[in-house]
Amino acid sequence: MSWLSGSHMARRGLARGAETARHRLSEADQGAFQYVYGPYAEPVLRVAPGAVIEVETLDAFGGAVKTEADRPSQVATPPFVNPQNGPIAVEGAEKGDVLCVRLISVAPRGPQPVGTTALIPGFGGLVATRETAMLHAPLPEIVRKVPVTEEGVVLSDRVTLPYEPFVGTIGVSPEIEAVTSLQPDYWGGNMDLPDVAPGAVLYFPVQRAGAHLFLGDCHARQGDGELGGVAIEMPATVVLQVDLIRGWPIPGVRLETEEAIMAVGSARPMEDAARMAYRDLIRWMAEDYGFDEIEAYLLCTQAGRLRVGNMVDPKFSLAASIRKQWLA
Amino acid sequence: MSWLSGSHMARRGLARGAETARHRLSEADQGAFQYVYGPYAEPVLRVAPGAVIEVETLDAFGGAVKTEADRPSQVATPPFVNPQNGPIAVEGAEKGDVLCVRLISVAPRGPQPVGTTALIPGFGGLVATRETAMLHAPLPEIVRKVPVTEEGVVLSDRVTLPYEPFVGTIGVSPEIEAVTSLQPDYWGGNMDLPDVAPGAVLYFPVQRAGAHLFLGDCHARQGDGELGGVAIEMPATVVLQVDLIRGWPIPGVRLETEEAIMAVGSARPMEDAARMAYRDLIRWMAEDYGFDEIEAYLLCTQAGRLRVGNMVDPKFSLAASIRKQWLA
Amino acid sequence: MSWLSGSHMARRGLARGAETARHRLSEADQGAFQYVYGPYAEPVLRVAPGAVIEVETLDAFGGAVKTEADRPSQVATPPFVNPQNGPIAVEGAEKGDVLCVRLISVAPRGPQPVGTTALIPGFGGLVATRETAMLHAPLPEIVRKVPVTEEGVVLSDRVTLPYEPFVGTIGVSPEIEAVTSLQPDYWGGNMDLPDVAPGAVLYFPVQRAGAHLFLGDCHARQGDGELGGVAIEMPATVVLQVDLIRGWPIPGVRLETEEAIMAVGSARPMEDAARMAYRDLIRWMAEDYGFDEIEAYLLCTQAGRLRVGNMVDPKFSLAASIRKQWLA
Amino acid sequence: MSWLSGSHMARRGLARGAETARHRLSEADQGAFQYVYGPYAEPVLRVAPGAVIEVETLDAFGGAVKTEADRPSQVATPPFVNPQNGPIAVEGAEKGDVLCVRLISVAPRGPQPVGTTALIPGFGGLVATRETAMLHAPLPEIVRKVPVTEEGVVLSDRVTLPYEPFVGTIGVSPEIEAVTSLQPDYWGGNMDLPDVAPGAVLYFPVQRAGAHLFLGDCHARQGDGELGGVAIEMPATVVLQVDLIRGWPIPGVRLETEEAIMAVGSARPMEDAARMAYRDLIRWMAEDYGFDEIEAYLLCTQAGRLRVGNMVDPKFSLAASIRKQWLA
Repeated sequence: MSWLSGSHMARRGLARGAETARHRLSEADQGAFQYVYGPYAEPVLRVAPGAVIEVETLDAFGGAVKTEADRPSQVATPPFVNPQNGPIAVEGAEKGDVLCVRLISVAPRGPQPVGTTALIPGFGGLVATRETAMLHAPLPEIVRKVPVTEEGVVLSDRVTLPYEPFVGTIGVSPEIEAVTSLQPDYWGGNMDLPDVAPGAVLYFPVQRAGAHLFLGDCHARQGDGELGGVAIEMPATVVLQVDLIRGWPIPGVRLETEEAIMAVGSARPMEDAARMAYRDLIRWMAEDYGFDEIEAYLLCTQAGRLRVGNMVDPKFSLAASIRKQWLA
Repeated sequence: MSWLSGSHMARRGLARGAETARHRLSEADQGAFQYVYGPYAEPVLRVAPGAVIEVETLDAFGGAVKTEADRPSQVATPPFVNPQNGPIAVEGAEKGDVLCVRLISVAPRGPQPVGTTALIPGFGGLVATRETAMLHAPLPEIVRKVPVTEEGVVLSDRVTLPYEPFVGTIGVSPEIEAVTSLQPDYWGGNMDLPDVAPGAVLYFPVQRAGAHLFLGDCHARQGDGELGGVAIEMPATVVLQVDLIRGWPIPGVRLETEEAIMAVGSARPMEDAARMAYRDLIRWMAEDYGFDEIEAYLLCTQAGRLRVGNMVDPKFSLAASIRKQWLA
Repeated sequence: MSWLSGSHMARRGLARGAETARHRLSEADQGAFQYVYGPYAEPVLRVAPGAVIEVETLDAFGGAVKTEADRPSQVATPPFVNPQNGPIAVEGAEKGDVLCVRLISVAPRGPQPVGTTALIPGFGGLVATRETAMLHAPLPEIVRKVPVTEEGVVLSDRVTLPYEPFVGTIGVSPEIEAVTSLQPDYWGGNMDLPDVAPGAVLYFPVQRAGAHLFLGDCHARQGDGELGGVAIEMPATVVLQVDLIRGWPIPGVRLETEEAIMAVGSARPMEDAARMAYRDLIRWMAEDYGFDEIEAYLLCTQAGRLRVGNMVDPKFSLAASIRKQWLA
Repeated sequence: MSWLSGSHMARRGLARGAETARHRLSEADQGAFQYVYGPYAEPVLRVAPGAVIEVETLDAFGGAVKTEADRPSQVATPPFVNPQNGPIAVEGAEKGDVLCVRLISVAPRGPQPVGTTALIPGFGGLVATRETAMLHAPLPEIVRKVPVTEEGVVLSDRVTLPYEPFVGTIGVSPEIEAVTSLQPDYWGGNMDLPDVAPGAVLYFPVQRAGAHLFLGDCHARQGDGELGGVAIEMPATVVLQVDLIRGWPIPGVRLETEEAIMAVGSARPMEDAARMAYRDLIRWMAEDYGFDEIEAYLLCTQAGRLRVGNMVDPKFSLAASIRKQWLA
């Protein structure tokens, strides 16, 4: 029996982990894609807790970077970047609930080379940006088209990397804000965290009726921090299952795998993201695993792990985790 | 003759600084106040360039903190805090234009004590917050009602401070985002910058047709950084004049007084806000005052001034300025 | 009668502000200059509390940048930069005491053009540095020789700025550390704070017997943040008076002028420097001016001022101040 | 054959990885321990390249926290904390060389419970500190004595964690500075990085003749970030081998294991430490592995890893790494 039967989703979700229906949200079904996480768009799909949904996502450039001669700075102009599927309304969801999302699979979609990476002027971890403003001229703009299969990601003649896909941007709608899909925050969004991968269950704090799930921006793989600002971007087919947990007032995104529980913090500077992540992990350990806060603090000091999702987005996302074996 | 006749607004604005009409936006006219800066609300007023507008603003608590026994954490709950007047549409404004706002006066409005300050749990410059997450218990919640007149701000029996009012939150709508009025950014918003005061002309980068001006959150006065998180908040009557400058693609908020020009940066950490402010000031000196960037950099090194608006909001706002006498 | 008679130095110092002796520390007397603030160098001068000392300082380049053709990166190589006079031992000083330094005058010294400014590769507020590491090529290295008199600082044909001199680097020895004179910290050092000017009294926390005062790096003037990294550097004659206050365990540098009291914080990121400065100011208000901490916090929120000394050194220095009139 | 024969140490070191002598530096041999990394102390041992040295280290409290009733804030007072063995002079080392240190073993030393952890007021990742200054009262001081063997670290009745020892503080002397052993920097020092473990080879940039190696502060294990500020501290026996590489001007600490190469950055805010680490990793890939900088930047974006050593020391230490298999 899978570890999933012991997950928070299966134990506390309305559907108890059972599949209640299957849906498909194709690129055509989606029609107009979304560029903000917010409550002002009408749902493109309504599902019940327990539903499994297959979603066709675009890449972060909306498919506009077709060849290595295309310039992202010309064909993909803010704020119309990082197109998202959704919103998907989950019936019965209310503010204060948690939306569970179990990621089942992420597969590349479309003709090869299906992957794209790039260096974009004014964006990235080792260049001057809008915020870390400097007087330097930008580095040259570069596009690399990248063959991606489940056998590997062909970065160059010299280097083929493992296919380790995940969903770069996913989350629920804020209550009254509508925020660019480039930004991560307590509702999820552009966390660019490699742990948001098949096998994980995500927990999002619902802010409004129906939760309004958005997702997009799949990556064939990515290093810690998404250093240059662009992972191996790809259009993808994502299969996921949703469920609802009533009355679980979590302050940000949490995540569970077979081995660990994890909390995400999104902020600048990076130490604030780390603090948010660890504080929420400690509170989760206190709420659900029988630790007091100080004991949890001591345990995280000796056994916590930090993952740097991104160090390039409007907020940096870090995740703090602890192995379940230490929580027994 | 006033310095205003030589301002960017008077020299480059469509109305050339001339008053074209007078409008009033009372509390009753406003009806429902706004809590996000965004394009999804209908304008409550439409005006032409050159219009003078008198606006009745609420305080940052929406008037809900009536006595020192009221707890902000109970009566003013996010995201429904920092209510804003607007949006006010300015006819003819298009993305890429600049909305000029000349601040004429800010007067307290309503019965004494008209001012309110407070310490709110989880908010402030010297306490643990959502982002600078810690395990400490919050400091006690405190409310202080403060008599405010043009003669002074009676902070305590011991201390009366000068009345130096300004508009804490003001700006234009983003193009597709709708962002909490607690946050400052390139469009303005909650900058909490004391220079946004009568006598100043502000320049906002228009993001959508009509510009959609919002404002609120007036302060009777405030120290640098708004350290505790709450200034002397007051309902106010604001008189301002608007104008439009065509095709001036500024990256953020700029400001002009008789003595100086100033550029605002909003970001975390604070050094990034300082960098943004100084870089934009340098670019303004290069565009409009005949410096090359390196000469402007050298001059700012020897004569630039930095003002810390806030060190407590979701982004910190700093302003960099240079005296006009060095630009002649 | 001068405000000085009411200063902490005059009221609490062993010499009560009286001049007890005069000393001169010429360039020749100094001999080898110092490049670290530390306890391992022998004093070049020993003085009693109340002594007035005239000190001949070098500029931050040690005089090695003689013409605009000299390259700082070649002639002034770390760690042998920012030469300091001292250590000057103050008789009787012990750890836990405060060394008072009253700045009397700062005058340029040597042939014109006596001032030097520059842009140095990898150094400055708007360029990639050792810490804010990036892949950009550095900006070109530039040197500007600058005539400086008490009538003005001739930055260019176009701009002459007021002469507003101060001491860029000054402080006491750490107990066992010896730290580069490029860095500010709780003992003082390279704060690059324009308030460290004639008319101010500085308070340094003594860390070891004799206090061991160092100083150097005078500036003819400087903007907030020392943006490009180099002020108007000049060799100077500094006249100052020292005194000792017994048993005043301050956590960092404090400063007093006729109008205000001020506390300095040195840290990165900049908000931490601001927090340190404001927290120490609040504690000073509580210790010596009859406020409780919360009242002081509220007053600083409405009337505190922040000065950004430098945003370019290994730690950024900010100063928080409050006008004495609000402390009465 | 071990991977070590292909390491930079074995290929480029003067001793080519061969053991040239064995030395022992017992606690008694050491005599007075050191509290700064600096050039002002006489070497306690002189060795040749290739030497293997067994070193008896103290724990970070100098053994002063003997029972759970001892208060670190009382028995271990700055600056006399984190005692270090050394300096050990390596014959022939000159500025511009690299000191190689191969870590062979780290074993606990002394009676059980040999480990100590604690929460110390004003220190830690989720509390107010000297730099992140706040008005909160400190959390209670706590000491936990922890049995440590190679079978495990008994944190509590409930949790036993694997023994994964490493050296918390290790490095070479700066040229003229003498810096507290609490601080990490380009010379090494208090990095608190779990990768500094048996099996790793470290590369330190020599700053002065003899290199002057210091080490101490061994940890039985630690989580990412050393969240509470204190790992499982223990006195230890460390066995290591040294070698010298001539004329390798590296800007900071580098590290090599069988699987990966790694570069360390120490700075605040945390993103600057990440930037330093990744930039130096990229430059290493360019210098020694045939990548150009842009190719290395792209590869790190997709396959780089970040490890957060500490988020509590005066500078935060992060390490960026890339697997050797992608460098072939």
